[in-house]
Amino acid sequence: MDVLKYLGDRARLVEREIDRWVPTFEPEVLAKATRHLIDAGGKRLRPCLVITACEAVGGRTEDALETAAAIELLHNFTLIHDDIMDRDEFRRNVKTVHELWGEPMAIIAGDALFAKVFEAAAENVRRLNLDGNRITELFDTISKASFEICRGQAMDMMFERMENVSEGEYMEMVAKKTGALTEASTKVGALLGGGTPEQVKALGTYGLLMGTAFQIQDDVLGVTGDRKKFGKPIGSDIREGKRTLVVIRALSSASKKDKADILRALGKRNASEQEIEAAIHALSRTGAIDYVSEKARKLVVEAKKQLDSLPESNARDMLSALADFVIEREF
Amino acid sequence: MDVLKYLGDRARLVEREIDRWVPTFEPEVLAKATRHLIDAGGKRLRPCLVITACEAVGGRTEDALETAAAIELLHNFTLIHDDIMDRDEFRRNVKTVHELWGEPMAIIAGDALFAKVFEAAAENVRRLNLDGNRITELFDTISKASFEICRGQAMDMMFERMENVSEGEYMEMVAKKTGALTEASTKVGALLGGGTPEQVKALGTYGLLMGTAFQIQDDVLGVTGDRKKFGKPIGSDIREGKRTLVVIRALSSASKKDKADILRALGKRNASEQEIEAAIHALSRTGAIDYVSEKARKLVVEAKKQLDSLPESNARDMLSALADFVIEREF
Repeated sequence: MDVLKYLGDRARLVEREIDRWVPTFEPEVLAKATRHLIDAGGKRLRPCLVITACEAVGGRTEDALETAAAIELLHNFTLIHDDIMDRDEFRRNVKTVHELWGEPMAIIAGDALFAKVFEAAAENVRRLNLDGNRITELFDTISKASFEICRGQAMDMMFERMENVSEGEYMEMVAKKTGALTEASTKVGALLGGGTPEQVKALGTYGLLMGTAFQIQDDVLGVTGDRKKFGKPIGSDIREGKRTLVVIRALSSASKKDKADILRALGKRNASEQEIEAAIHALSRTGAIDYVSEKARKLVVEAKKQLDSLPESNARDMLSALADFVIEREF
Repeated sequence: MDVLKYLGDRARLVEREIDRWVPTFEPEVLAKATRHLIDAGGKRLRPCLVITACEAVGGRTEDALETAAAIELLHNFTLIHDDIMDRDEFRRNVKTVHELWGEPMAIIAGDALFAKVFEAAAENVRRLNLDGNRITELFDTISKASFEICRGQAMDMMFERMENVSEGEYMEMVAKKTGALTEASTKVGALLGGGTPEQVKALGTYGLLMGTAFQIQDDVLGVTGDRKKFGKPIGSDIREGKRTLVVIRALSSASKKDKADILRALGKRNASEQEIEAAIHALSRTGAIDYVSEKARKLVVEAKKQLDSLPESNARDMLSALADFVIEREF
């Protein structure tokens, strides 16, 4: 089965479920602000991981729907708040929430989505009549992941003001900011599907590794991608001064001229198109882009190894295909 | 037993528990930002409600500790974000989080506290080995309250830009912004203590009513209180243009001159001390301050009636005393 079709089918299921959890409510302006980014699209990769992990341990698609929606709400909550902090104007080809409704409303919109996460998950475990231990582990997993995301975002922000960020520090940040939620996605899916502790653990590790690969591939797409497909301006990471792995690696090995070309644009909000282009060419010449792509590929190989302990199934094959998709995608 | 001593004893228990949930962690700047407002004090009224409600239905003090701490974290999360939105510079006699660390870090600090809420509650229900239904209801209660708080805060912000806010609209906002969390506090306490559905409901209603009384009394203290005791500048609500119940009531019945005195200072960030004083005198002359105080008193009477269905106990007496405290306090 084609991975994009699979993602699309699961996305529709999840979107119908999201409609139940974020319906229209008063005040209408808050309801609109909470829906805006969700309605703008997105791959729905994380809820797809929830459902597929549930199926991979023997659960049914419908067993994980509320929590799949919950994880997508959690993801969108973090995006809304990140966009405020990073002063990003566009995401998913639309204006960001704070650009449209102002920062205060964007802060509350994110908070409101976060609140709904646990309400949706509560409904799911009630419906399945899960035992207390499994319920507690599910809530614990979501809470701890949310906290790790905050730590990762704080590190990411601090890196922008640091002279030197090591590759190790960067990878730790990514594991928290992105890996923690994909890890939680597969773990809660496995919990809902009745997975054994070993299966929950293996699927969690798969999620962590593929999510980390996803993020460093994102850094690559941020400098090599197509603006229309990728949904945000190419070079925006550079303008914001983000210490992505591509930048970290490049600066550690660049020639004097390449380094100058990179640093000229890095963190310069009003950098010209020419300056951005020169920086991207310099990044490419150092071999940093290839290095990061290869690193993402290796993480995907490791992620797929985690699936060996699962019984053969369509869902397991799809998890394998989703891991490949992470590094093959253009958006 | 003296209610302030009772609150103080419970506060110490809760603070020790909070230390477990918000310890030092990396990055240190985020840890400091999350602790700042908690360490600045506060009455710990809400966690005290959790514990006392737990005891009032036959539970032990220690049965509710993690969730009591969780509710205080939730409260502090909302304060940190509210302060950003309201551009408040001080709270609890210290600078607000965004004043000290900037808005981005304040946003994450709030988010991080919110994440910890559910982790602490999960530990509590695991330790008590509660059954699945009770666990689910506990998480559901906290989630729904969090969402209502967001709706209340959005309404509060919208009111600042509205010409006319009715008393009914205002009371709805307060029930969400403040009442929802005190309601949740007593409900989760009763759930943890093994309360019957009727007891959970009665204690929830008690919490909603006393919390609503708390907030409208806060509006009174905001214009009549002592700055040192109250912890934030008197008149700041007026400068921010807050449509408090005092203001709403006063504007609906004020003489032309009083109305002019009120409107001159309302929403004027740089209003002089004289303008603020003139506005406060005008509010007082209209009888609005007395009207709101009386309304708070009636809510407290209703709240205390809810306690009739509970067995006699020290905890029940203390809930009654806490309701009285809400309208007798000076801070």
